[in-house]
Amino acid sequence: MFARVALIGLGLIGSSLAHAIKRRNLAETIAGTDASEAVRERAAELELAAIHPDAAAAAKDADLVILCAPVGSYRQIAAAIAPHLKPGAILSDVGSVKGAVMRDVAPLVPKSVHFLPAHPIAGTEQSGPDAGFASLFDHRWCIITPPPGADAAAVAKLKAFWEACGSQVEVMEAGHHDLVLAMTSHVPHLIAYNIVGTAHDLEKVAETEVIKFSAGGFRDFTRIAASDPTMWRDVFLNNREAVLEVLGRFNEDLSQLQRAVRDGNGQALFDLFTRTRAIRRSIVDIGQDSAAPNFGRDQSSDQSKNSQ
Amino acid sequence: MFARVALIGLGLIGSSLAHAIKRRNLAETIAGTDASEAVRERAAELELAAIHPDAAAAAKDADLVILCAPVGSYRQIAAAIAPHLKPGAILSDVGSVKGAVMRDVAPLVPKSVHFLPAHPIAGTEQSGPDAGFASLFDHRWCIITPPPGADAAAVAKLKAFWEACGSQVEVMEAGHHDLVLAMTSHVPHLIAYNIVGTAHDLEKVAETEVIKFSAGGFRDFTRIAASDPTMWRDVFLNNREAVLEVLGRFNEDLSQLQRAVRDGNGQALFDLFTRTRAIRRSIVDIGQDSAAPNFGRDQSSDQSKNSQ
Repeated sequence: MFARVALIGLGLIGSSLAHAIKRRNLAETIAGTDASEAVRERAAELELAAIHPDAAAAAKDADLVILCAPVGSYRQIAAAIAPHLKPGAILSDVGSVKGAVMRDVAPLVPKSVHFLPAHPIAGTEQSGPDAGFASLFDHRWCIITPPPGADAAAVAKLKAFWEACGSQVEVMEAGHHDLVLAMTSHVPHLIAYNIVGTAHDLEKVAETEVIKFSAGGFRDFTRIAASDPTMWRDVFLNNREAVLEVLGRFNEDLSQLQRAVRDGNGQALFDLFTRTRAIRRSIVDIGQDSAAPNFGRDQSSDQSKNSQ
Repeated sequence: MFARVALIGLGLIGSSLAHAIKRRNLAETIAGTDASEAVRERAAELELAAIHPDAAAAAKDADLVILCAPVGSYRQIAAAIAPHLKPGAILSDVGSVKGAVMRDVAPLVPKSVHFLPAHPIAGTEQSGPDAGFASLFDHRWCIITPPPGADAAAVAKLKAFWEACGSQVEVMEAGHHDLVLAMTSHVPHLIAYNIVGTAHDLEKVAETEVIKFSAGGFRDFTRIAASDPTMWRDVFLNNREAVLEVLGRFNEDLSQLQRAVRDGNGQALFDLFTRTRAIRRSIVDIGQDSAAPNFGRDQSSDQSKNSQ
């Protein structure tokens, strides 16, 4: 599909892309690099890609360059690679925010290069070049947010690439992407980080008790609160408005719910708890989550113990 | 271990107890009932227990009676069974709150009966007599909250029962239980219900988008927000003070975090996101959650599809 794909950043997403590209033979050469020397060395050991010492060297002559680093580093990377990008190449990324990426990167991209931001809605709570696996993107959505006037053939080519990586693709305006993701990803992460922090700081309950009795619900939140701190810091620094808008709504709703608890308003509680069930059902029905109770974790935990 | 165990309520927990009792032969007879005729019929088909038309009939002559119904129904059940309880029997329950259970049930229990509230920290998002399975309590904690002056031999017997059901047992004062569970279970559920409600009501994002792109984090919250509405209504009606106390702390912390997002305070965000990782690690290390990425749901979803 491409002669040469360059992956700038080889953490969870970059390394998963390397595996997914190899699985279907989507590139003759995969060039890779990472800002961390330790990651570059580990990626070389894992034979994820032909490893280069810096982004400019990796991006040189590539037909498709994908930024797989925290979005806070994009401006610097874009400045470094811009002079080396091949005319006609596609420059894309995997960042969780798209408006800020457009703002930071677009002015640095040569006119001869197709800049097409993208975001695969896939991941795990693990990080680093060892965390990647080829099936990460299977049955997950990838959103492409082409700037106005983007080349239709280039968009089609990027779409075909993500489909070959296992994804379904949706095209969307960057601002709308940022609002949708604030709701489906960013605020949920913020809430999860927050409640784990509250549990950590609550003096009247010992941390050992929080950990022992976490199966009552709390443990679910700790998974996404174990996600990569640098990546998530950059998400909140770069999607401030949409996050604050959704968080404002969350807070209004929570005030109402708090009032219902305080007033002993059982009907209001029951009505909300009934409405929310339907959304779960829809998510399971379209295959975006496991139908097995407890995410199937009880079956799989034995497997994972055996495999370690 | 017991000649006759009575299970009052045959939903997820009651039916799981029936399976767990049979697995290790912990009772000669399991008597069961449920307020719902449909549940009683289904439980009879599943041969979960000898089904009785009401709680009084099921509890009669039992050595161990366990209330497995929503806590809001306890007072009525206790009043109905009290005259029929066998002297020397143990009366226990599985409710998620313990102070209110003590307050509602203790005054109705004959002096000759050992009233020992308990709470297994185990469950799934599914409900009803078909949802139960024998291993639900394996490696999970069960908290017993004996009233002051409880009979030590009776406590030891109930402890041995839960251990035989697969659990580890901790003894705790009821008020402390309610605060610990507000943090590890009740407020996490309230937050999850709330954010799923916010997503449902947000006009600018279509519900189809919320569902499609839920793998970004939101789907994790929908699992616990699919839990039984009646049970959870009763939890919040009966643990108001502890829930409001923990929720107050959560809100204070969230205001700080919101301010950090608004101010673009990357260091504050990074520090919190780093601290929260350690708690996840501890929970996985003591076996209270799966070490597999994404709870292992990606492996198990194929299995569950095959088995359906």
